[in-house]
Amino acid sequence: MRAAVYHGSRKLSIEDVPEPSPDAGQVKVRVSRNGICGTDLHEYYDGPIFVPEDPHPLTGRSMPVVLGHEFSGVVTETGKGVTDVREGDHVVIEPIYRCGTCRACKAGHYNVCAVIGFHGLMADGGMAEYTVVPENQVHRLPDRIPLELGALVEPLAVAHHAAVMGEVNGDSTALVYGAGPIGIGLWFALRGMGLTEIDVIEPSETRRASIEALGARTLDPTAQDVPALIAERMNGVGVDAAFDAAGVAPAVESALQCLGERRPLVSVAIYDKPIPTPLIQLVLRERRIQGTICYTHEDYQAVIRLMAEGHYDTTGWVDTVPLTAVLDEGFEALRQGRRMKVLVDPTR
Amino acid sequence: MRAAVYHGSRKLSIEDVPEPSPDAGQVKVRVSRNGICGTDLHEYYDGPIFVPEDPHPLTGRSMPVVLGHEFSGVVTETGKGVTDVREGDHVVIEPIYRCGTCRACKAGHYNVCAVIGFHGLMADGGMAEYTVVPENQVHRLPDRIPLELGALVEPLAVAHHAAVMGEVNGDSTALVYGAGPIGIGLWFALRGMGLTEIDVIEPSETRRASIEALGARTLDPTAQDVPALIAERMNGVGVDAAFDAAGVAPAVESALQCLGERRPLVSVAIYDKPIPTPLIQLVLRERRIQGTICYTHEDYQAVIRLMAEGHYDTTGWVDTVPLTAVLDEGFEALRQGRRMKVLVDPTR
Repeated sequence: MRAAVYHGSRKLSIEDVPEPSPDAGQVKVRVSRNGICGTDLHEYYDGPIFVPEDPHPLTGRSMPVVLGHEFSGVVTETGKGVTDVREGDHVVIEPIYRCGTCRACKAGHYNVCAVIGFHGLMADGGMAEYTVVPENQVHRLPDRIPLELGALVEPLAVAHHAAVMGEVNGDSTALVYGAGPIGIGLWFALRGMGLTEIDVIEPSETRRASIEALGARTLDPTAQDVPALIAERMNGVGVDAAFDAAGVAPAVESALQCLGERRPLVSVAIYDKPIPTPLIQLVLRERRIQGTICYTHEDYQAVIRLMAEGHYDTTGWVDTVPLTAVLDEGFEALRQGRRMKVLVDPTR
Repeated sequence: MRAAVYHGSRKLSIEDVPEPSPDAGQVKVRVSRNGICGTDLHEYYDGPIFVPEDPHPLTGRSMPVVLGHEFSGVVTETGKGVTDVREGDHVVIEPIYRCGTCRACKAGHYNVCAVIGFHGLMADGGMAEYTVVPENQVHRLPDRIPLELGALVEPLAVAHHAAVMGEVNGDSTALVYGAGPIGIGLWFALRGMGLTEIDVIEPSETRRASIEALGARTLDPTAQDVPALIAERMNGVGVDAAFDAAGVAPAVESALQCLGERRPLVSVAIYDKPIPTPLIQLVLRERRIQGTICYTHEDYQAVIRLMAEGHYDTTGWVDTVPLTAVLDEGFEALRQGRRMKVLVDPTR
C-alpha cells in the first residue's frame, strides 16, 4: 500500500509499504482523510522532535514511521477480542498511547501521561491507505457525520479541551487570540457550549475574513487597542476567559489586560521560546495562565456530539489534497500560508 | 499624638497630629506594633503609588496620610453601634476597604475588589499612637497571642492566602522560592497545613540561615541544579505546588521545570517588569501560573488559629524599632538588607 514515510528532517517520501494486519485487540482502518497538523510541519522542517530515534517505551517503534495522527476511516478488519467496533464501521481515531500507571493516567489525565505516545509519530499513522490501531483509540462516527468532517475531530478536540479549561458557561464572555485551525476550533467549541459573546483577535485580514464567514465577530489588534475597547465595552469588568491560540507575546500581553479577576488565560499554543510575560497582571487580579494540551475521551465524545448537532462547518478553511501531492500542496502550502488546513486523501 | 505622615516620595515625617475619635461603626485602637511592608518601601522611595492624590472613592482620603497597614493594638473606644469588640480587647486589623457591590465583592473575593482601599495607604494607618478603623476590619486576638506577634498577622495572611491557592494537603510536596518575610510566612502556613516535604530555594546565605534556624530545609540555587535535583529525588514526578515569593526570572523558570502535571506555580511577588516565561512548560504538562494578592477574612482567622496553636516563631527575623527611628532603623535598614522584617513601636 501507499504511505508517507518520515525518515528525518525534510525527508518524507511516498513509498510502497506492506499492508498492516491487526493483532489481538487491534483494529485495521482504511483511512478516508488524514489532516496535516502543525506538529507534522515541525517534524518535517525541524525534526525529528516527537518521532523517536530509539524505540518508544509504549509502541516499541522508532524512525522511520508513517506520519499522520488526525484521521477518520472505515474499519476493514478487527483482531481477536475486539468488541467495540466491527467491519464497516465509520470511525475516528484518538491517537494517544498511554502507560495507564503514572500519576496522570491514574487521575484520568492521560493526555499528560509521563511516557505518552502518538499514533502517527511513535507508530505508523494515517498518511497511508491503511493503518492498525489499538481498540481503545477508536471512536465510532455516526453515519450522518461525513468522514471528511470526522478527520477534523482530533484538532477540534484539542480546541474543545482548551475551551473546557476556560471554565466558561453560556453566559460567559471570551476572547480567542488567533484564527488558525485551533482558534477556529475554539470558536466552534465555545459556541457549542452556548457562548454568544466571543471576539476573535487576529491580525491577518485573510484569517479574519475566513472566520467571519463562519459567523464570528473579530477584532484587528493592529488597528484597534483591544484592551481599551474591552474595558470600555465592559465598563472595566474583564472577560471571563481568554484563549491564546496565537503563541505570541502581544497576544499574551493583551489577553492578560482584558481578563477579569480570578479568570484564566488558557494557553493552547506551541511557544518556541520564553515570552516576556507581565506576571504582575496575574498577581493584581488573581488571574492565571493555564496550559492545555491534547484531549481525553470526553473531548472526542463532546466534539462528535457537537458535529452530529451541526455545530461545525468546514467552509472556506479546509482543503483536501491527494497523498501524492502531500509535500507541495500540503506541507509547503501550509508553511507558506497558502492554505489553513489540509486533509490528505490516501486513495489518490 | 505622634504619627509618621507621608507627603510623597522620600517625604515621611514624624509629626504631632490630632488624635482621631471613632464615628458610628468605628473602633479606636491604641497601636501596639506596626510592621513596615514592601509596599511602604515602594511608596516611600518610588511613590506615591497607592496613596491617592485625589480622594479615594471608599475613604474620601488623599495624601498626606499616616502610613501603616500591618498592626495590632488595644481597643480604647468604640463608636455607636459597634458590638463585636469593646474597650480593652486585643485586636489585629485587616486593613481592606471594599465596595461590596462589584463582581469580586459579591463573590466574596473582596481582596480583588474593583476599587479596593487600604487603611494606612488610603486612610490614616498604624504608624501612629492611635488610629480609627471600621468595625469590619477588626479581628480579636486571643490573649495568649502576644501583640508583637499579632502585628504580623497581615503579612502572614498574604502568605496563607497564597498557600491556599496552591491547593495542597498534608501529603503534598512544595517548593518555596524566596526566604523573605512572605517566603517565611509561606513555609509556616504550609507547615500549619500539615506539609512536611517543603524546600525553600534562596540564593542569600543569610536568608537561608535565618529560615533554617526556624526548621526549614533549604536549597541554594547558585550551587545546585534545583530542577535536576528534584527530578532525581522524585523520579521525574514533579512537586505538587511551587510558590514564587522571589519575583525573579530564574525562580519562575526553575519552578515551572520542577512542577508536576496540572499543578500550580503560585505567584505572590511584585514583578516590576515582564519576566521571560517559558509558557511551553505550562502547555506540555497542563501546569498553571496562579496570581494571588492579599487575603480575606478566612485567612486572618486561619493565621490567628495557627498562631494560637504555636505555629509561628519570630526568632531571628523580626526586629522592633521606635517610631522616632522609623526612617533610619526601619525603611533604610530594610532597603539595605540589614534587617528582614521591622515592627515599629509607636509609643517610643
